[in-house]
This record gives sequence, structure tokens and C-alpha cells, in this order.
Amino acid sequence: MRIRFPATIVALACGLVALSAQTGQRAVSLLITNGTVVTVDGTGRVIRNGAVAVDGTDIVAVGAADVVGKQFRSTTTIDAAGQIVMPGLVNTHTHAAMALFRGLADDLALMEWLTKYIFPAEAKMVSPEFVAAGTRLAAIEMIQSGTTTFADMYYFEEEVAKATKAAGLRGVLGQTVIQFPVADAKTPAEALARAERFITAYKGDPLITPAVAPHALYTLDGPTLRAARDLSQRYGVPTLIHVAETRDEVQTAQERAQLSPVAYLDSLGFLGPGVLAAHGIWVSDADIALLKARGVGVSHNPESNMKLASGTAPVPAYLKADVALGLGTDGAASNNDLDMFEAMRMASLLHKLQANDPRAVSAATALRMATMGGARALGMERQLGSIEPGKRADLILVGTASARFTPMYDPVSHLVYVARGDDVQTTIVNGRVLMRNRKMLTIDEAAVLREARGWAVKVRAAVGLP
Amino acid sequence: MRIRFPATIVALACGLVALSAQTGQRAVSLLITNGTVVTVDGTGRVIRNGAVAVDGTDIVAVGAADVVGKQFRSTTTIDAAGQIVMPGLVNTHTHAAMALFRGLADDLALMEWLTKYIFPAEAKMVSPEFVAAGTRLAAIEMIQSGTTTFADMYYFEEEVAKATKAAGLRGVLGQTVIQFPVADAKTPAEALARAERFITAYKGDPLITPAVAPHALYTLDGPTLRAARDLSQRYGVPTLIHVAETRDEVQTAQERAQLSPVAYLDSLGFLGPGVLAAHGIWVSDADIALLKARGVGVSHNPESNMKLASGTAPVPAYLKADVALGLGTDGAASNNDLDMFEAMRMASLLHKLQANDPRAVSAATALRMATMGGARALGMERQLGSIEPGKRADLILVGTASARFTPMYDPVSHLVYVARGDDVQTTIVNGRVLMRNRKMLTIDEAAVLREARGWAVKVRAAVGLP
Repeated sequence: MRIRFPATIVALACGLVALSAQTGQRAVSLLITNGTVVTVDGTGRVIRNGAVAVDGTDIVAVGAADVVGKQFRSTTTIDAAGQIVMPGLVNTHTHAAMALFRGLADDLALMEWLTKYIFPAEAKMVSPEFVAAGTRLAAIEMIQSGTTTFADMYYFEEEVAKATKAAGLRGVLGQTVIQFPVADAKTPAEALARAERFITAYKGDPLITPAVAPHALYTLDGPTLRAARDLSQRYGVPTLIHVAETRDEVQTAQERAQLSPVAYLDSLGFLGPGVLAAHGIWVSDADIALLKARGVGVSHNPESNMKLASGTAPVPAYLKADVALGLGTDGAASNNDLDMFEAMRMASLLHKLQANDPRAVSAATALRMATMGGARALGMERQLGSIEPGKRADLILVGTASARFTPMYDPVSHLVYVARGDDVQTTIVNGRVLMRNRKMLTIDEAAVLREARGWAVKVRAAVGLP
Repeated sequence: MRIRFPATIVALACGLVALSAQTGQRAVSLLITNGTVVTVDGTGRVIRNGAVAVDGTDIVAVGAADVVGKQFRSTTTIDAAGQIVMPGLVNTHTHAAMALFRGLADDLALMEWLTKYIFPAEAKMVSPEFVAAGTRLAAIEMIQSGTTTFADMYYFEEEVAKATKAAGLRGVLGQTVIQFPVADAKTPAEALARAERFITAYKGDPLITPAVAPHALYTLDGPTLRAARDLSQRYGVPTLIHVAETRDEVQTAQERAQLSPVAYLDSLGFLGPGVLAAHGIWVSDADIALLKARGVGVSHNPESNMKLASGTAPVPAYLKADVALGLGTDGAASNNDLDMFEAMRMASLLHKLQANDPRAVSAATALRMATMGGARALGMERQLGSIEPGKRADLILVGTASARFTPMYDPVSHLVYVARGDDVQTTIVNGRVLMRNRKMLTIDEAAVLREARGWAVKVRAAVGLP
């Protein structure tokens, strides 16, 4: 229960005639009104002329604009006429700092791309400063395209955390553990120690959820996989890992344990709630049942999987088994952007084609994957993923006035089959407005782009591009 | 050879010091300078600080900015700094007016979508006024997303032609011939007569290439297919037809003639230069060889094929056989927009996945398909598809300043994997600027969108949507 007196004082201080005492209106920090509210709640409610009331970090009400308008007032109101108000998008798998490698040597065979360009570039370039610069660049792109939460796997994750907090984004940030020497750890033991320091530094942060990111079964031995999982379980933080992304990985698991990648990880006691498996392409029905039984979340990354020719994740089977399934972009080096609207569109179109059924993944299903599905895959479904009172105010406003959106028979269809990141006008995370009418409020965009172009000159030299 | 005297007078009239007589500079109607020019010429030349000189309807020079700047001057100069200058995109298959059905009842089985929504909506709604309004809406979208030429198949094609000319776009416009009664013809004979009138009205037009559009083999009998082809051959205009789009069509051809769709059409003497086959999904290697031997162009429509679960066209095989292969969006009812950048991206990603090879369709190949490939498929490769002197000045400027484009190691990669229609800043067709810095110059956008929303109310009622 709020006390009304201070709110009245505030209203008077702002030169308003304070009606709250008479009308019983509750003062809140932000009112978004007159928009088409796509809630993604349990019933998929769409409110044609709707409003959302936000107080502090939380959504306190959602409903018809006239009803919410009678109950709440705010000195900060956003008129969302002609816009869709929806939950912020949850990107369940990316490597944010790799935005600095965007478009570096495409269209090569996977091993050539990795060994001639990406690995050498990482070996020579990755540093705290590089990771900070790359994350800032990615943060701009994410805010501008409506992503409000992202799950990251990379190095120097404390730099990712700092840049993410400064931008005002929400992150599930996984400090990488890998068997061979990398920029931020010479040994797995060093990586685990670094991960533990990172966890203790950020545990309980309102925006940052620290996590452990054992890279993959093919880059880690069994004991280190187990140690990484133990660490995250000890602190109750998520475990992010690449699982069953390539045919090669299937072969590695087969050679090591005569098991599928999923079954092998399970044989180590690795799988359980809090594990986010990125990709999940090469899985059998038994693997899917195992992932469901263990409460593992899965991140589907259709564009990256297509671009790298990794394969097609069995999305309809995951959905049928009710696995917690989110969408991701993967890093910008293999996408080549961080646009979750494209991920939605691709998820829907790809699985219609592969299932030979235009009903396979509907627009509503793709939208749910990119919001509630992602929240659930990350174990954050009570806080994120839909517009419902009590959840964090992670919201985006999407413009629908252009020719491309005209006419609009169904807003959910347009969000998936027509919208793209640049249609996002306003992005709000944890109740804070990070972008309003395309104006960035927390990042000096020009400075970050200048800095990124400077890094690109060095990357180009590092890999011998002209 | 131009006479310099009048140009000097013009320059003086504009208050300029006329240096042309001394410097030997040629006055031209438009100079685009300081941009990254992606020519899509035979060698795929990219000019980092380049310029394009346009005089009247034609490109007269392309090269380094300093060189072109010494040779040419203009009272109209566009500074393309930070932008890519490229050939306008060629959309080889669409139904422009169906933009008014955009997003009408998605995610249904094909026959349910067609018989419950699209066919009833067309039966009740299609009129000259509807087609004019829908084409105006599509024209805005095409100009805003960098399409400069489109191949259309629909009804009342004279209305499409009027709207296309008014917008300043280039169109290959196919008047539909179909066996059953439709809005603009009760019989195939009436449709053929209408097509002939349309051809005679527009033959020789600088922007409009009239064409005959027999709908498909499953909606036409053999004699009518033959009559439609005869008509287009008699006048030397293109023939646009859907070919091998669905499995059902394969079955129809089998039942009718124990042949594949391609072989059946060939058995009628239908295939030859000037035929544009849209989709071309269900084809054998022998069919592909036949299409190549007959000089038929093919339009690949990846997004529509995925959304309707039609199947995957064998694009690598078409490319290997050197079939004239362009890209298309299909109508906005099955896409749901007209963005050729998405068509490029999808063509590249889809065929990497299906071929299990990230090298399958490179960015450069996808870009070529959307420009030169389309021009060639439509028999316009001498006029369109690349930035080369003597070709028509159909050019677009793409902004690359945003975070999403940063950094830029390779402009061609970014055009395919990052760019989208809204990144187009300026669109030029036949030497005329139709949009400059996102400002529409030939269409009253607000009026057209208002009109489109009005039609949508009627469409909604026609199909019983709430």
C-alpha cells in the first residue's frame, strides 16, 4: 500500500492541481497509454487501446487505456498511439563483443572461417578494452532493436557486465570456461576462479545475473564440464553451454562416450534446471525428452544455424515436448546482426518449410518464443517475458505507421512477418527508458561507433585483410 | 556528342561561374559522388570513394570520385558519403495490389487460406479502384526499400501501369489469363483480348513493359496456355507464369500428360526466351537443363515459399546450370512485405542450410541474383541490373552509418546479411529521383496509406473478420 500524501506533494511541486486525494488515482513513475498492447500473457491478450502503468522497476497494471487512466497518473506519460506495446525481447544466446567481428570473412567453410579469421582475431584482439567496446556497440544495437535481456557467453565478462549496466540493459552473463588458453585465463582452473570472482561480484544485482559458461563438450573434458556445473550450482546461477550445434560435436560425443551430446552431458550429471543449451540441433526424440525431464532450457538460433550451415533444430518437437525454448541471434559474426525480430521471422518461416506445414510455427508461437519462451529458458519467467502486473517493466514500443505495416489486420502477425528492429521506437528496461523515439538516452552512440571503427582497423590488420 | 553552349548558359543562369569551356567538363543531369559504389558489373567492382554520372535516363560514367568529378559537373549533386551506391533491386515476381491483403489470415493450411480468405476477398474486392490503391501502396513500399523494377501478375493491369508510371517505377506488368471467371474477365478469351489491348496501349513505354500472365498450368488448359504464349510472342512481350510451385501442380501435370510441369509446358511449345517462370521449386535436373536450353528465366521467392511451405527451389543447381535466375518477394499476402533485401538474405541463408555448405550462395551471388540476375531473367540485362555506362539510371543509395552496420569489413556482405529496405535513403529510376533522404517525391504517402486503411475495413468485412 502506498501512502498518498507524498505523491500529492510531488504533484503540487510540479505545478499540477493534485486530484489524487479526491479521485483516488495512484501516482506511478511511468504511464504508457493509447497503444495496442500485446501482452503475451497466458491467454495471449491483445488490448487495442491499452495502457501499462509502471512504478519504479515494476509493471503495476495493464488494461484498457480508459480504465488504467482512471486508476493511475504519472508526471511521465508516453503516448503510444499508432504503436504496439509489447514485452522486451529476450535474446537467449549471443556473444555481444563479437559485434566487432561483424561480417569478417563470410561465406567460408566453417573450419576455414574459424581457424583463419575468428580464432586468430580473438587471439590477437580480445582484451578488457576490446570486450568493453564490443559490448557497448552491441548494447546500442540491442536497445535499438528491442532486446531488453540477453544471455552472453564470452571472455572478460566483468567488462560485459559494466557496459551492460551502464547501458541499462539486463544480462545473463556467462564467464567462459574452456580447456585451452584464452585471453582471460591460461587454464580451466584460472577460468573457474575468474568465474567465481565474477559471480560473487554480481550476485543479487538487479540487472546482471552472473553465470558460468563452459563452452562446449568438444572444447572441455568431462571433469572440467562437471567442475563448471558444480560452480554454478554452488552459487545457484545459470550454466550456459553450446550443445549439439554441429555434426562434428555429435561425433566427438560418440567417440568419447558412445552417447549423443545430450546423453553424454547427462551422464556427467551436468543437465538440470538452470542449464541453458544453445542450439540443440542434433538431438533425438530421446534427447528432447531428457532435456525436458531435466528442466533444461534451449536457445534456438535460426539465422546463425543457417549461415554456418549447422543444421535445423527440431523446433516443432521441442514445442510439442514443452521444452523451455527461447530464441537467440548468436554473435554478430555469424548472423550478422542482433535483430530478434528477424530471429522470430526466421523461426516461423524455417520451420513451416521444414515441417511442410504453414501452421507449424505460427506468428503467436514465434512471438512467445522470443519473450516468455526466452524468459522461461533462462529461469526468469516469474520476472520477465510478458506484460503482467508484478513483473519487471521491460517493455518496447513498435511503430506501425509506415507503408510496410499498412494495412494491419493482426498486430501479432505484423510483429513477426513485417517488423524489424528499426521499427522499435522506445525501449524500457527495469522501468528506465533507454531509448525514446529512437533517441538513445544512456549511451553516447557517436563515440561508441567511432571507437568500434577504430578497433576494426586493428582487426583488419590482425587477420591480414587489405 | 553534346553541344556545350546550352549547358554553359544553364550554368550561368544558375549563377555559377561556367568553367566547362575551359575544363572540358560535361554537364549532366545528376552526379552522385563520394559513395562506396557497388557496381555488380562483370567483375563485381566495388569503388570505395566512387561517383556515378547520370544524364537524362542513362548512366554515362562510373568510377573514382576524383576522376568522374573532373569529367562531369551537374547542378544536381547527391553527396553519398557514408552510403553505398548500388543498382536498383529487381523484384521478378509479385502481385503488387495484394499489399492490401498483407497479413490477412496467416498460418493456415494453404487451401484453407486460399479458399476461406484470399479467393473470397479477391472475388468481392478486386476492382480497378482496389488495384490502383493497392499498387500505390506497394509502390511506396518498393521505392522505400530500393526496388526499382518489379514484375507483376494481377488483374486490371492497366491500373497497375498507371499507378506505376505515376510513382515513377519501372514495371514488367503481366495481365492475368486464367480459365475461370475473375474480376476483369469472364472468360479466357476476354482475358486475352484485355491483355492485347493492354499490350498495344503500353508497348514502347519507357517505364512499362506490358506482358501476358497465364496464371499457371493448373488453372489453364493446354489451348489457353498456348494462346497466351502466342499472344506474347506475336507482340514480342514477356510471358509471366507460375511454374512448379507446389506438389499439387506436379500431380496435375502428371495426370494431364505424364510429364513434369516444366516438360508439360515444353510439350505445348510454351517455353522460350521471354518466359519468366516464377518459383521453379519442383524441378528435376532434366527440367533445369530444359529451362536453360529454352532460355527461360526463373524467379526464386524464398520467403513466400517458406511461409506457404511450398518447398525449396534448387538454387545451387540453377546457378550451376547458368539459368537466368532472379529473386522475388511474391505478393505481400504471403511474405508479408516487399523487401528485396530480405529476399537476398533469405536466399543466401536458406541455400547454405539446405546444401549443408556455408559457401553455397555467397553474399555476392545473392546480390547478383537481386540485380543482374533479375534483369537477365526478365530479358532486360542490356538496360538494367548493374552500374555501367549506357544502362538506365536505376540506382539506390543505402545508408551505412548505424550501429548495425558498424564496423563494415565488406560492403557486399553488409548489403546481404545486415541491410534491410529501410536502410535505403534515396531511390532513382530512369534518372529521376523518386525518394531522397527518405522523403517521397512522387507519391502522397499519407493519402495512400489513408486510402489503404479504408480498403482494409472493407476487406475485413468481406471475409468476416471481427
